[in-house]
Amino acid sequence: MTKILIVGGVAGGASAAARARRLDEHADIIMFEKDQHISFANCGFPYHISGDIEDYDALLLQTPQSFNARFKVDVRVNNEVIAIDKANKTITVKDHIKDITYQESYDKLLLSPGAAPFIPPINGIKNDLTFSLRTLDDMTRIINLIKTNNITNATVCGGGFIGLEMVEALVANNIKVSLVELANQVMPSVDIEMAQPLAQELQDHGVTLYLEQALQTVVQDNNQLFLTLDSGTTINSQLLIMAVGVRPNTSLADMAHLELGETGAIKVNAQMQTSDSDIYAVGDAVQSNHFVSQSPAHIPLAGPANRQGRIAGENMLGGTAQYQDTQGTAICKVFDYAIASVGLSEKALKKQGIAFTKVYLHGPSHAAYYPGACPISLKLMFCPTSSLILGAQAVGKDGIDKRIDILSVAQRAGMTVEQLQHLELSYAPPFGSAKDIINQAGFVATNVQNGSMPIINADELVLGAPHQSLIDIRNPAELAKFGTIAGAINIPVNQLRDRINELPKDQQLVIICQVGLRGHVATRLLKNLNFDAVNLTGGFKTWLNYQREVVQVTSC
Amino acid sequence: MTKILIVGGVAGGASAAARARRLDEHADIIMFEKDQHISFANCGFPYHISGDIEDYDALLLQTPQSFNARFKVDVRVNNEVIAIDKANKTITVKDHIKDITYQESYDKLLLSPGAAPFIPPINGIKNDLTFSLRTLDDMTRIINLIKTNNITNATVCGGGFIGLEMVEALVANNIKVSLVELANQVMPSVDIEMAQPLAQELQDHGVTLYLEQALQTVVQDNNQLFLTLDSGTTINSQLLIMAVGVRPNTSLADMAHLELGETGAIKVNAQMQTSDSDIYAVGDAVQSNHFVSQSPAHIPLAGPANRQGRIAGENMLGGTAQYQDTQGTAICKVFDYAIASVGLSEKALKKQGIAFTKVYLHGPSHAAYYPGACPISLKLMFCPTSSLILGAQAVGKDGIDKRIDILSVAQRAGMTVEQLQHLELSYAPPFGSAKDIINQAGFVATNVQNGSMPIINADELVLGAPHQSLIDIRNPAELAKFGTIAGAINIPVNQLRDRINELPKDQQLVIICQVGLRGHVATRLLKNLNFDAVNLTGGFKTWLNYQREVVQVTSC
Repeated sequence: MTKILIVGGVAGGASAAARARRLDEHADIIMFEKDQHISFANCGFPYHISGDIEDYDALLLQTPQSFNARFKVDVRVNNEVIAIDKANKTITVKDHIKDITYQESYDKLLLSPGAAPFIPPINGIKNDLTFSLRTLDDMTRIINLIKTNNITNATVCGGGFIGLEMVEALVANNIKVSLVELANQVMPSVDIEMAQPLAQELQDHGVTLYLEQALQTVVQDNNQLFLTLDSGTTINSQLLIMAVGVRPNTSLADMAHLELGETGAIKVNAQMQTSDSDIYAVGDAVQSNHFVSQSPAHIPLAGPANRQGRIAGENMLGGTAQYQDTQGTAICKVFDYAIASVGLSEKALKKQGIAFTKVYLHGPSHAAYYPGACPISLKLMFCPTSSLILGAQAVGKDGIDKRIDILSVAQRAGMTVEQLQHLELSYAPPFGSAKDIINQAGFVATNVQNGSMPIINADELVLGAPHQSLIDIRNPAELAKFGTIAGAINIPVNQLRDRINELPKDQQLVIICQVGLRGHVATRLLKNLNFDAVNLTGGFKTWLNYQREVVQVTSC
Repeated sequence: MTKILIVGGVAGGASAAARARRLDEHADIIMFEKDQHISFANCGFPYHISGDIEDYDALLLQTPQSFNARFKVDVRVNNEVIAIDKANKTITVKDHIKDITYQESYDKLLLSPGAAPFIPPINGIKNDLTFSLRTLDDMTRIINLIKTNNITNATVCGGGFIGLEMVEALVANNIKVSLVELANQVMPSVDIEMAQPLAQELQDHGVTLYLEQALQTVVQDNNQLFLTLDSGTTINSQLLIMAVGVRPNTSLADMAHLELGETGAIKVNAQMQTSDSDIYAVGDAVQSNHFVSQSPAHIPLAGPANRQGRIAGENMLGGTAQYQDTQGTAICKVFDYAIASVGLSEKALKKQGIAFTKVYLHGPSHAAYYPGACPISLKLMFCPTSSLILGAQAVGKDGIDKRIDILSVAQRAGMTVEQLQHLELSYAPPFGSAKDIINQAGFVATNVQNGSMPIINADELVLGAPHQSLIDIRNPAELAKFGTIAGAINIPVNQLRDRINELPKDQQLVIICQVGLRGHVATRLLKNLNFDAVNLTGGFKTWLNYQREVVQVTSC
């Protein structure tokens, strides 16, 4: 009879316990959780604060009693594992209820301690109006404070997933929110031009953005905080949410001299084994290989944690299941928008010195003539030699999850961008297009790969370059409505053939349209007439998203 | 200079013309269309009839003038190609406006004539109250008749894609609709148990279903039709829509002795070449290989037509692009439901003698605790030896397109069902689940493949079999609410361990839960205790969908 001890009773730990029990009715399984609850829906916390999820109990997926009844697992809440003795294969447990310390032996031990919010060492940051959001108690205290202090303004520090979800949750409580972010953009996990529509969306909801600024000091005066940023700006706030990232909980592993990885998280192999073959670790506390770069990465996400737990549960009973690396697929709702990504971002590719080609597309979420179609902006990055998909990002109000999921599957399957042309996606006017934006991305990338469509990227464009002429091929009405790039000559695409002699023969022609589609038609036409033409990928729309000033975005 | 003639100016033809022009500015391209319009959105017709698409002009994606201005293509509408002379490489064209006939020579010829509605030889079917829906004129005449005759009741013959979309469009006009279908289910392209929720949805919208019945005679009396079915039933109707399928338009190809395939459609190779290497054909008129069976198939869908057109356009100019077979991915909106499928159905697999294993899952479209989650029912069929995905079907109110698209990509990529476990799909509570139903399908299929979860299918279950006991492991409240299978013993899953001695040791235990998930837990428990247990895949919910009586379905 195998005796399995599991440290941590949420995503990874609970998955492992359930899997182990299904495989072996006789195993002795004990799950330790230092807090009061197991298996709670922490991803739902912002939505309970917002009021979208009305019922607190909906967040409690299992109780210790229900979990034991279903899986015959001895669940010990308020029991904190404080030490591991690898040599003797025992752990030391502090029972916070009985206030005793005891030991428990194991055959196999699983660490699923999660991660903890990182709180930078800021003067005055420890105060009773400042919270992070990781536990049910954190959530409850935030909700209570909003009520008892009648909060009308708040500051969120950190513009990533949790930060943005908390901004939305606070605005839903009629709170005026300031967002402070160290990077020069919100959602730093995606590239700046893809995050631009979010900046607009946040401001449209009354959020004040403080980008490229860091919180420096916090001073509390009763129910009020005075926040000073490194720019010198000061913000008065009744509530401060710290959401600048998490750090893996490695203290237990570290004390036991289990190997940590380059990222500071617990090192595990594909079987989720640590450097001690009887000790496994999963979830937000471990390091994984990035699917694309094959470099070590710390990617704390619910999906991988759950799957890793299931794998560890199997392997602790002699299985040979393997975790197959992390792509980092993620999505965030920001008011009416969703933003999602898979694989590596452009900045990560650059940082890691990985060669890439990028293309941009903008297209409707379903047939444009059917009501409710919303623009999707898509960025696709691929290897110029292998044509493999390196990363993709999408932003818009509808169909974002679907497009990134499709690309996630294609990436994992090792499909090339050429193969995206042939994907057969479900089409009826309410759901898609006969040539979906994913197929279009395949067409565009293939045209770039085989040299039939030379492109220039908006961030490569140097205005006033003497060897280039900018040709805006949109209709005059579009230029009047959206503007154009300084110095561009306007010749509508349908007039190009008749006005071909207006084009300089000795310069490179940079073709500008709204989204890059007509630009492709024009670029091909000009190339076939022996002009040196390049298409501005993603058109004027992507170029605009590269401009630092927030510009007016047309609504869906 | 290559001279390209294109017969048909909608999806396939227009795609080919645009692609050819982008590749060669100097090619001479003429596109012939026997009707008045090119490049119109025929998939939108039902939604203009319903009023969802208000603007008629929204359906006209291009005019002959706009297409010529953009692509320098000589578009000749009302010009019908009536003969091909392969030897001399000329075609004969009837200009219906000038009422003349003329010849045109070609280097390459593309046939994109589409398909025509099949009208069975029924007595009285030719009358001015009976329509099919293929052209803009068909649509306009239906809309006009609804208004002028003040239609309050109508009959649709044929319960496939067009038939169901037309049912919905008519109901949107406050018309009482009868639906006549030869098969014993609506949407015969999917399997009967997956179509069951649609039958309920249709009846909830006041539609009267006549299944397993054929229209036999039609008698018109002024503005009234008297329809007699082969069952003897008669229906009075002010309007009859015939939507029993389409037939490829092959008369031109046939006259020219181009080879037709086993399906009756034009035979083409992967380059979209017919038996005459200078003549290409694409779209609803051609036969393709089915991706799964590699058998010849006639699958008239917009996506393949568009992609085939693009490939033919390239190849007529010396390209070597290849069409990569058809998976038949399709989706249909039926009031609040969507139903979608990819690959082969169970009945097609059986008909073609392809061995398969099937599993069913029911799960929420996103995290169940976040508002708006709707049940998805998923059927996954895979090869018991290779684990490749043979087919999948899904039905529900949300997230159906996404799940079938994911499986479509996985199928095309040659992924096994085991690999579905590892897919990293975008997760936040509004969009998905940490273990998405697609991952769950991977878990279930893997458990079946490796023998750790023996299953029985609802359609294999013989009630009262002496060697089996049915064990319903749901809570008594669920049995009271939903019912159970006759003869089942109720032992809730959480009580199984304590009541193990109530179970017969010498019989096979068929485990029944609501959707198959708790059934898996119970089956594993019992197997680990050396019982012979099998899990009813898809649980009571799938079993119910196999029962012919329409049962009450709980709303989303």
